[in-house]
Amino acid sequence: MTSLPTSGVIPPLCTPLTPEREVDRESLERLTRRLLEAGVHGLFVTGSTGEVGYLTDQARTRALEIVAGVAAGQVPVLAGVIDTATPRVIEQAAAAKAHGADVLVATAPFYVPTDPTEFRGHFRAIRAAVDLPLVAYDIPGSVHSKLHAEVVADLAAEGVLDGLKDSSGDLNGLHAVLDLVRGTGFPVFSGSETLADVSLRCGASGLVPGIGNVDPHGYVRLYNAARRGEWDVAQREQDRLRRLFKLAAVGDRSRMGGYSSAIGAFKEALVALGVIDNGTTSLPMIQLNDSERAAVRTYLVEAALLPNGEE
Amino acid sequence: MTSLPTSGVIPPLCTPLTPEREVDRESLERLTRRLLEAGVHGLFVTGSTGEVGYLTDQARTRALEIVAGVAAGQVPVLAGVIDTATPRVIEQAAAAKAHGADVLVATAPFYVPTDPTEFRGHFRAIRAAVDLPLVAYDIPGSVHSKLHAEVVADLAAEGVLDGLKDSSGDLNGLHAVLDLVRGTGFPVFSGSETLADVSLRCGASGLVPGIGNVDPHGYVRLYNAARRGEWDVAQREQDRLRRLFKLAAVGDRSRMGGYSSAIGAFKEALVALGVIDNGTTSLPMIQLNDSERAAVRTYLVEAALLPNGEE
Amino acid sequence: MTSLPTSGVIPPLCTPLTPEREVDRESLERLTRRLLEAGVHGLFVTGSTGEVGYLTDQARTRALEIVAGVAAGQVPVLAGVIDTATPRVIEQAAAAKAHGADVLVATAPFYVPTDPTEFRGHFRAIRAAVDLPLVAYDIPGSVHSKLHAEVVADLAAEGVLDGLKDSSGDLNGLHAVLDLVRGTGFPVFSGSETLADVSLRCGASGLVPGIGNVDPHGYVRLYNAARRGEWDVAQREQDRLRRLFKLAAVGDRSRMGGYSSAIGAFKEALVALGVIDNGTTSLPMIQLNDSERAAVRTYLVEAALLPNGEE
Amino acid sequence: MTSLPTSGVIPPLCTPLTPEREVDRESLERLTRRLLEAGVHGLFVTGSTGEVGYLTDQARTRALEIVAGVAAGQVPVLAGVIDTATPRVIEQAAAAKAHGADVLVATAPFYVPTDPTEFRGHFRAIRAAVDLPLVAYDIPGSVHSKLHAEVVADLAAEGVLDGLKDSSGDLNGLHAVLDLVRGTGFPVFSGSETLADVSLRCGASGLVPGIGNVDPHGYVRLYNAARRGEWDVAQREQDRLRRLFKLAAVGDRSRMGGYSSAIGAFKEALVALGVIDNGTTSLPMIQLNDSERAAVRTYLVEAALLPNGEE
Repeated sequence: MTSLPTSGVIPPLCTPLTPEREVDRESLERLTRRLLEAGVHGLFVTGSTGEVGYLTDQARTRALEIVAGVAAGQVPVLAGVIDTATPRVIEQAAAAKAHGADVLVATAPFYVPTDPTEFRGHFRAIRAAVDLPLVAYDIPGSVHSKLHAEVVADLAAEGVLDGLKDSSGDLNGLHAVLDLVRGTGFPVFSGSETLADVSLRCGASGLVPGIGNVDPHGYVRLYNAARRGEWDVAQREQDRLRRLFKLAAVGDRSRMGGYSSAIGAFKEALVALGVIDNGTTSLPMIQLNDSERAAVRTYLVEAALLPNGEE
Repeated sequence: MTSLPTSGVIPPLCTPLTPEREVDRESLERLTRRLLEAGVHGLFVTGSTGEVGYLTDQARTRALEIVAGVAAGQVPVLAGVIDTATPRVIEQAAAAKAHGADVLVATAPFYVPTDPTEFRGHFRAIRAAVDLPLVAYDIPGSVHSKLHAEVVADLAAEGVLDGLKDSSGDLNGLHAVLDLVRGTGFPVFSGSETLADVSLRCGASGLVPGIGNVDPHGYVRLYNAARRGEWDVAQREQDRLRRLFKLAAVGDRSRMGGYSSAIGAFKEALVALGVIDNGTTSLPMIQLNDSERAAVRTYLVEAALLPNGEE
Repeated sequence: MTSLPTSGVIPPLCTPLTPEREVDRESLERLTRRLLEAGVHGLFVTGSTGEVGYLTDQARTRALEIVAGVAAGQVPVLAGVIDTATPRVIEQAAAAKAHGADVLVATAPFYVPTDPTEFRGHFRAIRAAVDLPLVAYDIPGSVHSKLHAEVVADLAAEGVLDGLKDSSGDLNGLHAVLDLVRGTGFPVFSGSETLADVSLRCGASGLVPGIGNVDPHGYVRLYNAARRGEWDVAQREQDRLRRLFKLAAVGDRSRMGGYSSAIGAFKEALVALGVIDNGTTSLPMIQLNDSERAAVRTYLVEAALLPNGEE
Repeated sequence: MTSLPTSGVIPPLCTPLTPEREVDRESLERLTRRLLEAGVHGLFVTGSTGEVGYLTDQARTRALEIVAGVAAGQVPVLAGVIDTATPRVIEQAAAAKAHGADVLVATAPFYVPTDPTEFRGHFRAIRAAVDLPLVAYDIPGSVHSKLHAEVVADLAAEGVLDGLKDSSGDLNGLHAVLDLVRGTGFPVFSGSETLADVSLRCGASGLVPGIGNVDPHGYVRLYNAARRGEWDVAQREQDRLRRLFKLAAVGDRSRMGGYSSAIGAFKEALVALGVIDNGTTSLPMIQLNDSERAAVRTYLVEAALLPNGEE
C-alpha cells in the first residue's frame, strides 16, 4: 500500500504557516484531507511547492509527520530530501524515513559545482544508506544541471532508482527517458502544471502539479480522462487548469521574484477556499499585497472554484 | 581581536577527512597551525574550499570547533553559514556562533528560485537573528544569482553587512562595490586565487584564496608586498601562484567535475607537503588517480614547495 | 495561391552543394519536386536547415530562385531573411522579394546585444520596407533572445506580422501565443521535428520540420491524421519520425558540433535516398566520416525509407 | 607602416549617421582626424561600437573608405568582417580588403549553432582566402561562444592569426592566452574600457576601448603611462575614464536595451564635443531622450571634457 505508486496524481503539498511562520498543523491536516478526498494517488511533502528550501529540518519533519498521520497508509507519502550533496541528503533521508516517509525524492547535487560524472555515485550512495524507494527529481531550474536520460535509465536498471519526477519542462527529454525505460514499469512523473495532458499522452505515468493543491479534483479528472483515452476531455480540463495557473503570476515582478508570487498565490487561493488559515510564506519571500490577493480570487471565480458572489 | 579583520589574507580552509570520511582532527589542527605560522590574518572555515556543501551539520560544527580551538583568539574565525534560504541559514548561523565563530559568511539564497528584491530581507533577517558580524558572500557560480553593488552598499550603510567576499571573478563588479563604499572602511575581500594582486590594486582589502591552503606564505608575501606598494613584487608572486593554481585542473574532466579535481588536488598537495594525512574528498566527488596525484607533486616542485628529489 | 498558407507542412529545405560548395541546381530541383509530390503546403528556403547562416547572399538568392522556379506558384515559397539587425534584414528582404519569395521569415536581431523593447520597431520597419507577408521566427537557440507572446500578438493585431514560426521548443510559450491569437486566424507553425503531433494538438497551424526533407510523406501523413482528429495515428507517425530524427545525432561530438552532425546527416540521408548528389556541408562544418554515413543509412532502413538489402 | 600595430590604442570608431541614417562622411572624417591627432596607434572600423551589426554592406564599405582616406597610411586601419559563418565572412573580408583595410578582425561563427571543433577551420579558411593580417575577435557576449586560449595559441603558431582582440571581460582568460603566447610577439588587445590599466599590467599589448571615441587623449595618456611603468598615473587615468564610462548606462532600461543606451550615449557625447553632427543610431535601437542627453553632458563636464558653463 505504501510503496511508490506507479501512476496517478501526487500533489506537492504546500506547507501552511502561522503568521509567526511555524508549520500550521490544522491547516496542513485540512489540506491533506482535502487532497485525499479528491482521490489523489500519493502525497509529496517537502517539495519545491512545499517551500522545502526555506523550511528548517525541524519544520520539514513536522510537516512530514502531520501529512503521514493523516494519510495513515491510505496512499504513499513521498518526501523531498533536498540538500546540497550526498552526505547531507543521506541525513535528510534518514530523518524522512524516521518521520513517516514511504518514498524518498532526491535531486542532483547543487550549490557545489557538480558534474554528470558524479550523479551515479550520488544516487547509489543515497539508496545504499537508507532503505526506501528512491525517486530522482530532475529540476534544472533549481539545481542548474540536467539528469540525462541515460543516467536515469542506467540507475533504473541497477535498481537504484524507483522512479523519476521530471520538472524540467522539456518534453523531448521526457520522451528520451520514456524511450529508454519502455516496458520496464519504471514510473515517470511530470511536474508540469500546464503540460499534464500532453505528458500523459507521451507516456508519463502520473502528475505532480503544484497547483494541484488548489484544484486537486481537476487534475484527478484530467488524469482519469487520460487513462480512459478520453483525450479531448483531458485537454479541456488542462485548458481550464492552464488558465487557473496564471494566478501564479499575480505578483508584481518589480517587487518580488516569481516564486514569491507563485507560492504566495497558491496559499492565498487555499485561504480563499477555506482550506488553510494564512497565506504567509517563508522569509525572504515577499508577501502579496491586497490587490494581488484580490486578483487571486478572480482567477478562482473564473475557474469556478469560488462562486461569483464571494469574490 | 576576534572581530572581522578589515584586511589581510584569510584562507578558506580545506576540511581534511579520514578514509572513512570523518573530519580528521589532527590533520585539521596541523593545517590551522601552519596557516597561523604563515601569518594569515583570519581563518575561513566551512567555505566552498572546505567542502561545506558536502559536510553534515555535525561535521561543519566539528571543523569549526577544531579550528577555533587552535586559533584561540589569535585571529578571527569566519564560518560559512551556507544553506538554501533564510530560516535554514539562521539555524546554521546560530550553530556557528555556538561553536566558536567570530564572523558569519552567508550567500544569497539558492536552489529556491530567488530574486534581487528578496536579498535585502534575507541578510537583514540573518543579522537580526544572530549577533555576530556578517559578511556577504557573492558567488554566482554556485548560487546562480549576483549580489549587485547597490544591494551590498545599501546593507553596508544600514549596518547589516560588515564586509563582502567577492568570488564572482568579475573585476568590474568589484570596482562597482569599491566605488560605492569608498571611505567607509567597509572591507571587500577577493576570492580569486589568480587575480589577487590586481584585486588589491583595485582597492580590495584582502584575499580569500583556496590555494592559500597549499601556499599561505606566498599569499602573505603577495599581500604584504601590495601593502608596501611593491606591485612588481606582488605581481611576480602572483605569477608564480597562478602557475601553481593550475594543479586544480589536474583531474581528467571526462572522469570527473572541475570541483572533484580542484579540491582533490588541494588535498593531495597538502598530503604531499606533510600537512594532512589523506586526500579523501566527500561523496559524490570522484577521487584523483595515481597519475593525477603524481601531477600534483610536479606542480609543487615547480613552485619550489617540494624539493625536486622528493617528486 | 502564393500568399502564406495558414496551415500545413512547410519543410525548411536543405541546400544541396556541389563538392566545390556551389549550390547544386539539379539536386535542389529534385529535392523540391520530391517535397511537392509528397503534398507539402509550402516551401521554406534559406532557413537554418538550409544553412542560411553559411550561404553567401548570392547563394541565398540562387537557392531561392531555383526553388521558386520549380514551385511555380503551386505552393507559396517562404524565404528566411536572416541577418543581424533591421537595415541588413531589409536588404535581405528586398533581395528575397526580387528573387521569387512569396513570404518573408525574419528573426529578432542577433549578434548585436538586443532587447525586447527593440523588437516591435524591428518588425515594423521590415514590414514597412518590403511589401510581402512577414512571419516572425522565434529561435532563441540561435539568436539568444525570446520573442514573447505579447510582442507577437501585438504585432499580429497591428497587421505587421502574418504568422509565427516557433522553433523555441517551449510548449508553454506556444500555448501562450495561441491563447492570445485564438480566433484571429493568425497561423503559428512549430519548428519541432519531435513534438509535431503535440504541437498540432495544442493548436498549432502547421509544421516546419527539418527532417521533413528526408521524410516529407511522414509529416504530411502526421499532419493529415491530426486534421482528421486521428490523434493515435498522428502519434504513431510521430513516434516513428522521432526515432528517425535520432540520425541527426550520428556525428561524433568530440569531433564536431551538433549542427555539423544534424545537417550532415540530413544531407547524407538525401544522398542515400537518391535525391541529391553530395552530402557536402558548408565551411566550417565538419564532414561526416564513413562510419557516421553508414549509421545514417541504418536509420533509414529502420524507418522503412530504404530497403534492408541496400543498407 | 600599415600592417597590424603590435601595441597601442586602437579605438573602435563610432559610425556617425545623418538623421536619415546614411553614413555621415564629414562627421566621420572629423572623428577620424580627432583620433589621429590624439595619437592613437590604429583605427578599428566596423566593430561593435561602430554598429557593424546594423550597417548594410554598402554602409560598411563606405565607413571603411572614409576612415582609410583620412588615415592615408599614417596608422593601420583594421576592419571588422562580422558575419555568421565562414563563406559570408570571406565575402566581408574581400570587400574590406578592396576598400582599404590593412587588417581584418573576425569573430567565431554565430547564429549558426557552433562548436570549438569548428573554430580552427573557420579562421584558416578566412586567412587562406584573403591575404591580409587576421585578428581573432573574442566577444562571447555577442557570439555566445568563447575562443579558448589553446585555439588562439595554436592558430598563432600556425601563422593563421596575427593578433587577438579580447572583449570577453575575463582577465583569467586573458592571462591564459598571454601565458601561451609569451615571447612570440603575438599581440593581444583588450576591448575593456574599464580594465585597461589592469589588462596592460597583465601583459596586454594594447587597447580597443569604445569610449576612446569620446576621450582618446585619456586612453593614450593611460597607455603611455603604462609603457613608462608609471602605473599609478595609469590607474588614476583609468579611474577617471571608468567614471566617464558610466555615461554608457544613461538610457532608461525600461525603455531600451543596454546597447541602445551605450551607443546613443557615445554619439551624443561626440555631438556635445562638436565632433559629429547627429546622435542618431541605427534601427531598431531606441533613441535617447532629452533628459538622457542632458545626463551625458553632465558626465562630460565631470570628466573635464566640457567646461562647466556649457553644460
